[in-house]
Amino acid sequence: MKKVLIFAAAVCACWAARAQSSVTLFGIVDATLTYGTASGAGSSHRWQLASSGYNASRLGLRGQEDLGGGLSAGFWLEAGMANDNGAGLATNTNNQASGAAPAPLAGAAGLTFNRRSTVSLSGNWGELRLGRDYTPQIWNLLLFDPFGALGAGAAQPYVAAINGVTQVRASNSVGYFLPANLGGIYGQAQAYLGENPRDGANTERDGDGAGVRVGYAAGPLDVALAASRTRYAAGDVRQNNLALKWQIGPARLLGVLVRDRNATVSGNGFVAGAIYAIGAGELRAAFSRYATSAAGSPAARKFSLGYVYNLSKQTALYTTVAHLKNRGSSKMTINGAVAGGLGESSTGFDLGIRRSF
Amino acid sequence: MKKVLIFAAAVCACWAARAQSSVTLFGIVDATLTYGTASGAGSSHRWQLASSGYNASRLGLRGQEDLGGGLSAGFWLEAGMANDNGAGLATNTNNQASGAAPAPLAGAAGLTFNRRSTVSLSGNWGELRLGRDYTPQIWNLLLFDPFGALGAGAAQPYVAAINGVTQVRASNSVGYFLPANLGGIYGQAQAYLGENPRDGANTERDGDGAGVRVGYAAGPLDVALAASRTRYAAGDVRQNNLALKWQIGPARLLGVLVRDRNATVSGNGFVAGAIYAIGAGELRAAFSRYATSAAGSPAARKFSLGYVYNLSKQTALYTTVAHLKNRGSSKMTINGAVAGGLGESSTGFDLGIRRSF
Amino acid sequence: MKKVLIFAAAVCACWAARAQSSVTLFGIVDATLTYGTASGAGSSHRWQLASSGYNASRLGLRGQEDLGGGLSAGFWLEAGMANDNGAGLATNTNNQASGAAPAPLAGAAGLTFNRRSTVSLSGNWGELRLGRDYTPQIWNLLLFDPFGALGAGAAQPYVAAINGVTQVRASNSVGYFLPANLGGIYGQAQAYLGENPRDGANTERDGDGAGVRVGYAAGPLDVALAASRTRYAAGDVRQNNLALKWQIGPARLLGVLVRDRNATVSGNGFVAGAIYAIGAGELRAAFSRYATSAAGSPAARKFSLGYVYNLSKQTALYTTVAHLKNRGSSKMTINGAVAGGLGESSTGFDLGIRRSF
Repeated sequence: MKKVLIFAAAVCACWAARAQSSVTLFGIVDATLTYGTASGAGSSHRWQLASSGYNASRLGLRGQEDLGGGLSAGFWLEAGMANDNGAGLATNTNNQASGAAPAPLAGAAGLTFNRRSTVSLSGNWGELRLGRDYTPQIWNLLLFDPFGALGAGAAQPYVAAINGVTQVRASNSVGYFLPANLGGIYGQAQAYLGENPRDGANTERDGDGAGVRVGYAAGPLDVALAASRTRYAAGDVRQNNLALKWQIGPARLLGVLVRDRNATVSGNGFVAGAIYAIGAGELRAAFSRYATSAAGSPAARKFSLGYVYNLSKQTALYTTVAHLKNRGSSKMTINGAVAGGLGESSTGFDLGIRRSF
Repeated sequence: MKKVLIFAAAVCACWAARAQSSVTLFGIVDATLTYGTASGAGSSHRWQLASSGYNASRLGLRGQEDLGGGLSAGFWLEAGMANDNGAGLATNTNNQASGAAPAPLAGAAGLTFNRRSTVSLSGNWGELRLGRDYTPQIWNLLLFDPFGALGAGAAQPYVAAINGVTQVRASNSVGYFLPANLGGIYGQAQAYLGENPRDGANTERDGDGAGVRVGYAAGPLDVALAASRTRYAAGDVRQNNLALKWQIGPARLLGVLVRDRNATVSGNGFVAGAIYAIGAGELRAAFSRYATSAAGSPAARKFSLGYVYNLSKQTALYTTVAHLKNRGSSKMTINGAVAGGLGESSTGFDLGIRRSF
Repeated sequence: MKKVLIFAAAVCACWAARAQSSVTLFGIVDATLTYGTASGAGSSHRWQLASSGYNASRLGLRGQEDLGGGLSAGFWLEAGMANDNGAGLATNTNNQASGAAPAPLAGAAGLTFNRRSTVSLSGNWGELRLGRDYTPQIWNLLLFDPFGALGAGAAQPYVAAINGVTQVRASNSVGYFLPANLGGIYGQAQAYLGENPRDGANTERDGDGAGVRVGYAAGPLDVALAASRTRYAAGDVRQNNLALKWQIGPARLLGVLVRDRNATVSGNGFVAGAIYAIGAGELRAAFSRYATSAAGSPAARKFSLGYVYNLSKQTALYTTVAHLKNRGSSKMTINGAVAGGLGESSTGFDLGIRRSF
């Protein structure tokens, strides 16, 4: 039992000259007590000790090597975990339903680098990245939702989306990222493979897909547009969105417009919210809605209110309260409550601690 | 391939000022050749190369951050592993049978933080700990059995216990620990959730539970009492014990009294043993017994004798011999032997090496 | 998120005195775009983003402790991973088919130390090693194939071998290695256990086995001979080979002769190849063949040509092209293509990047 010494800022002079290549160990352990209740005859409430209420729990290793001439080579291995019970999270190997773990694997899913596992080359021309990575279009929902698409407050266009296997990440991807020095313009493009045999079957391109994201950030403004398509014989999945951020003093206003399509079903939604900094803490609020064209026209809107108090840069306490109202054939709830029927409402809260390293 | 430098004691002066937060990588790799044989017609013996004969093999990360004002935030992620074949050990996600991995997962169970995965806040008021952790009552068996509830010598009240899923650890737990400065008094309380929907079903509280442990350590004496209950519709599980340690020169005398209940079945047992230090080694001996009220009144008693030689603080060689005698409908054996019938006896040994880091 | 500082060579003076025991974190992330096509009516080609085209992707921890008197204690925990999708690789717990993960575990296999998980003692008498380790006989194929038994170019006696579960590694093994100072002679012996009950069943020794390897390296020459047997009621598996390396200036000539047996089927093969160093890169070429006595006398020969360019010691770009021709009832292909029938041919290539740390 020995200590791996870890430190925040500059290093000893005697080290500096040698540190041409480094490996960073990083992680987040986020635990939260959650409660959810719903309305309707036969409804149930639920208490849980859950993970990832504020930030997604993870354990990772990443490294960057300077190859000279502006070129560098990096890798990134990041595993999600459910620290409420110690399990790891499964990944999807081929961007199709067959690439996911079968359902009843309780307790057995070990550490997989499901969140990201990439190797990359970068230079002043940008970055080329290979492996499992976030899809371009998900960034607009992760970064422009005041609740970061996590916990009781997560926005409906993320929680209720009809975008399937590649909504958040894709395996077998090749990505390209614009360099940082383009006067505020940023962007990325990604293509990924379902790895089926090309044999003329109508499923031969299942799980193949591509996405693109372009944005502009300058001063108080940040705006980004993304579009993507994943191919399936049963009908392609398309995920498109537009996101806007505007900083006014201590307030950050956030908004996302979403338009999805999964085969013949379309989905539409939005998030409108704000983060307001107060000393070492911040207030978070959001209103979001998502509706689809599926049978019964399911729709739900959610109002979320939260507060985060930073004990340090690494440690934060947080709480969130959210209320959701279903319409049509929608039966969504918060924090694992079960509603008594269609069109009911649900309320829940999180109370947690997040420790990063 | 680079070295993460690791070191035992103080650190360079140039580091000390910066090291306000640290991450510790730790582990144990313990491999042992085991043999077991049993009596009776049709019995079999078995040779294995096994793990965790002396200390439980593991790999972990933990960290502590000083938040100022006596407050600190910590995390602990500890995975068990079977280093005889490289597999990780599964966890249980909900303190019920449904939260365990299905049986035939040979070779697939990856690294899960099944041993402990917690995030905590501590101060001069004690520690608040959230996640998967040891139950309070198991400590009396882990710490007061001369063989630490591991290997051929592990005491019967641990090996034969009727305490089910939460015998050793619980997921979704909230724990509180008394601070260290209470004049020898120590203690902890824990509550954990089965996370079922509260829907009026008679199983809605399955996997919920709580435990408490209080002890007193001063000079040669250490005594601790623990009690716990986990709720199930099929009948609650109760686990209670009382443990005593007395140090006399190089000899440590150890004893545990155990009283369990699983629905309508009760279990009773004890451990009486000693550890005797000789130079860099120690002799270990224990006599233990466990009996239940199940059909046929199964009971077994075991005598265990062992020796550990410490090549260094990190590396130890060890051997243990144990003999077990069944009574009534008991058919227990040592190290995977199979007995020819009820009431037979079994003998086995371990010969291993333990390396920690 | 903090940095674990990592460095290559000497350490600060203030450290040197303390570093008596160390833990090394190491790994390889290798991603490659692969393509394969095959001939025959109904054949298919396939594109994939794969892992381990040049070196096997892995993540590991190992440590060595100096115990004084020439004795040291070590451990080695090494996990394979598929960084194209973030999954870990499963292990085999008992050297039998029952010790492997059931097939459809897509996305769930977490990090297991399937590549190696050992604890060992070593001195001037050699090394004693316990746990899951490479079998002695596989080293001749890993080290004397110019393509290291990986990627599109991997030699047929490795890819097509009939050697089953213990072809590459064995769990529950006890190994002995000769010390390094024997004037160029090297060698190892290994025995491993299937851990079945010894109950007189004809499967009681399934998965038990042993292997031995002896070699001689001096100046430009390296030659090694290996033999092994794993016992199964269905018929033992025997794997024997002879390997030769000869260095002539920038060229390394390599050859392996292989003779296997699995129950009543015998297999024969060879590899003949070369590696030619050119500046920071190297050309690799190999011709290999493997044939068995199974129904229809399947046989295939492969020609592989590749180039590796080292951007640094850690980072390499590589490409390989290979062509395979089947004979008899053989239907092998390269990179996941499907052949239209028996006796067809296949072609494929890899284009990838390897980053080690």
